Amino acid sequence: MNRIDLQDKLTKVTAPWQPGIIAEANGQHFKLARFLGDYPWHAHAEADEAFFVLKGQFTMEFRTHQVQLTEGQMIVVPKGTEHRPVAESACSVLLIEPAGTVSTGDADTSDLTSTGQWI
Amino acid sequence: MNRIDLQDKLTKVTAPWQPGIIAEANGQHFKLARFLGDYPWHAHAEADEAFFVLKGQFTMEFRTHQVQLTEGQMIVVPKGTEHRPVAESACSVLLIEPAGTVSTGDADTSDLTSTGQWI
Repeated sequence: MNRIDLQDKLTKVTAPWQPGIIAEANGQHFKLARFLGDYPWHAHAEADEAFFVLKGQFTMEFRTHQVQLTEGQMIVVPKGTEHRPVAESACSVLLIEPAGTVSTGDADTSDLTSTGQWI
Repeated sequence: MNRIDLQDKLTKVTAPWQPGIIAEANGQHFKLARFLGDYPWHAHAEADEAFFVLKGQFTMEFRTHQVQLTEGQMIVVPKGTEHRPVAESACSVLLIEPAGTVSTGDADTSDLTSTGQWI
């Protein structure tokens, strides 16, 4: 029951695509991440993923369309949906997803794969 | 898989303590609310509640202490924990909690009680 300051926590998240866990509620993890560049195409069979842009902008690409997101906007990617976040410049994002969700889902990209570290 | 703009959605949330639902993921509802004044003391037996301040500030009071929160800060209130949000001036908040969570929990305050309306 403590205050969680996202700007403070963001100072601990420096490497792109390496999320830091800041909170848990109802089995969901709240993660901070920095997006930069193209992430691999992947899907999560069992997890919806919510993305909220704190700073900057990125594009969520789907196989059928893409959605540009900027500060103060969010999107939910339903389970089983292939997607790929792309950020031309650094973008700070709050993710909400089930604890233990693997960042790369069904894609085999072990250098990026993470379930997040508590920060 | 559409963009959700929180500022746009906030224009539809005018009455204090009447949350509007903007998204669902993994059984959790994302709700926007305006806090203003003192809310009743209450607890949610089965639901953790996450609060993220979008604009303004409020105080989350517990029986043992209180936590002041401002823009960019969040707090998780664990299930079963008595709490009371208090806002001296209007404050815009993003709540994340299980779908169907009753705003006033175990408190009998029917005029404020809501599970949120989709907006």
